[in-house]
Amino acid sequence: MKKILTLVAAAFLMIGAVSAQELNNFNFRGRAQVVSPEIKGDSVTFRLNANYATIVNLYGNWLPGYTDVIPMKKGAEGIWEATIALPEPEIYTYNFIVDGVSVNDPVNYMVQRDGTRYLNMFIVPGERTANYNETAHRGTVSYKWYDSNILGINRRLTVYTPYGYETSGKKYPVLYLLHGAGGDEEAWSSMGRAAQILDNLIEQGKAEPMIVVMPNGNPNQQAAQTMGLPVTQMNWRDPANANAYVRSLCEEIVPFIQKQYRVIAKPEKRAIAGLSMGGGHTIAASQLYPSMFDYICPLSMGANPTEESIKQLQGLKKDGYKLYWLACGNTDFLFESAKTLDKTLTEQGLKHTFFVSEGGHTWANWRLYLNTFAPLLFK
Amino acid sequence: MKKILTLVAAAFLMIGAVSAQELNNFNFRGRAQVVSPEIKGDSVTFRLNANYATIVNLYGNWLPGYTDVIPMKKGAEGIWEATIALPEPEIYTYNFIVDGVSVNDPVNYMVQRDGTRYLNMFIVPGERTANYNETAHRGTVSYKWYDSNILGINRRLTVYTPYGYETSGKKYPVLYLLHGAGGDEEAWSSMGRAAQILDNLIEQGKAEPMIVVMPNGNPNQQAAQTMGLPVTQMNWRDPANANAYVRSLCEEIVPFIQKQYRVIAKPEKRAIAGLSMGGGHTIAASQLYPSMFDYICPLSMGANPTEESIKQLQGLKKDGYKLYWLACGNTDFLFESAKTLDKTLTEQGLKHTFFVSEGGHTWANWRLYLNTFAPLLFK
Repeated sequence: MKKILTLVAAAFLMIGAVSAQELNNFNFRGRAQVVSPEIKGDSVTFRLNANYATIVNLYGNWLPGYTDVIPMKKGAEGIWEATIALPEPEIYTYNFIVDGVSVNDPVNYMVQRDGTRYLNMFIVPGERTANYNETAHRGTVSYKWYDSNILGINRRLTVYTPYGYETSGKKYPVLYLLHGAGGDEEAWSSMGRAAQILDNLIEQGKAEPMIVVMPNGNPNQQAAQTMGLPVTQMNWRDPANANAYVRSLCEEIVPFIQKQYRVIAKPEKRAIAGLSMGGGHTIAASQLYPSMFDYICPLSMGANPTEESIKQLQGLKKDGYKLYWLACGNTDFLFESAKTLDKTLTEQGLKHTFFVSEGGHTWANWRLYLNTFAPLLFK
Repeated sequence: MKKILTLVAAAFLMIGAVSAQELNNFNFRGRAQVVSPEIKGDSVTFRLNANYATIVNLYGNWLPGYTDVIPMKKGAEGIWEATIALPEPEIYTYNFIVDGVSVNDPVNYMVQRDGTRYLNMFIVPGERTANYNETAHRGTVSYKWYDSNILGINRRLTVYTPYGYETSGKKYPVLYLLHGAGGDEEAWSSMGRAAQILDNLIEQGKAEPMIVVMPNGNPNQQAAQTMGLPVTQMNWRDPANANAYVRSLCEEIVPFIQKQYRVIAKPEKRAIAGLSMGGGHTIAASQLYPSMFDYICPLSMGANPTEESIKQLQGLKKDGYKLYWLACGNTDFLFESAKTLDKTLTEQGLKHTFFVSEGGHTWANWRLYLNTFAPLLFK
């Protein structure tokens, strides 16, 4: 029996290897296999097997401009190639442009999703990226649905629970981690490497074991667009609707999480952080619900003072908090706005940190920020 | 404050809409937006904006042969188009081939992952696909890690818990649902629409609320290749290693799940089902651990009788079970093997169902099977 099963399995494997289960094989059949990307010493080489293409370019997010590309050269057997100097340690995304059409690298399995686009990635090793890799003790990533009465829809959120959560019997602090415009409930776990960063920091004893909740910040969406669910027809740039999401976060998601998970339901064990639009949500939540979060981290976002916001900031100051950690890149298009918020916080006597990094409005910065502020939480 | 935040957010949104966060815009900039695929009456139209391409073909999994393609025609503004008669209600995958290179449809957000390949999908509505769509009451999909001493690695598995699990306080039956060669722990939730099928069946009262555990059946892998984790250097076609996975399933995964979840830990509340290679695992597990599963569903797999397997089948018969549900497509390359197993079960006096469907070794069949046998479990 074992032998025959093995034979059947082996026979199937051969077919399986060719058909990869009923799918198109245009990239495989009779073509030389290539390795791409290949990091070797101080360089990295990209390759694409595309014999019939006229022009192949390489686009990578390390290039300075959005329209910059690196021309690839056609070599033997129709394999296009480009070699670049290895960029600084970081996670990079890239794709090929074959006769004007964006194409994923068919031999690189590592893919990030940015909104509605799938992009190949590679990690240049180094101190900066050490915590972005998988470690030995991994938490659980779950996709959950909550009912929002405020937004009138059932909505998906991503929840990270630390290694050992299921059997420890302990209660945990919670970080609410918000994405930016164009993102969704998978942005922090896909592009942000949130699970890997937390796994590493917790394993090293640098961060408290915590639950991380990553909701969908687009109030018209039930879930990431990739799930194909209908969106609500509402103008979410309307201030009333913008607050509707923050209200859903503070009045619906926080209680939902506290009911579903073993949570220490106290402000000193509750943090909020968000990038860009999510930084706006973070600022709004901290000011509209001053007693809710004792750790407040707006990333790559700022705000101009108004009479109302100053009143709210005074309310937050009076109510008390443990950490106000503002971060922005020094070439970010919102850097001036962040500097203004920093100035307002100083003027209003709110103790805070203004963490300024190199660079702009990028996931390289947002990963760095998470890796930097997570160890400061709940201590 | 609200107003200014809104202005900052609106300004960012404009930039965000253009840059989709720091990425290449070759498909957007200055090009006409297209709709693809567009289902209209009895036809479906595919479109791709690719002004510089020489030849664009459409590949779809409804086409009879692996090398069959539909030529697309270049129209105004460099938009390529192909219209086909709407195929029968089912989920289909497709991609474009631009000058010989496979390309995803950049305007269709719905993507399935098949092994290491991302494929666009669309659903043709109908009775057959009714349960493949999202419903109102959704369960949770979690990615968990378990330590396998037998395989010497930490491994990822996907767990579906039904709607209401977290707050019901109840214990649930468990279905162990196994993928085929080329698949991984996300195959059933991505291509198989397992969460949607269970959500629908449970909501309609047709299936018992159950936990579904979808492990990774490749014993050399820690997780799907897309996670970039190193694989174990072992020959898993070796019978000893093939059993190593089944042993890990029955001796490690089953106890792990029973520890982590509220489970009715009895054979009559434990089911096993698997497709192709996973059907082989199902057959092996049911025979090597005859007291473990009272519901046994090998899909698109069979086995020739041997002295040993007949002894094991007699053991299973003696031990007792509630359902043996074998399924195969009538053009499947393993149909003869499945017929042989059906014959052996009859000859050996093991009560069973042999469910024969149209078609071959396809996800269309595996979705149909899950949708058909799930209502029979735990009753």
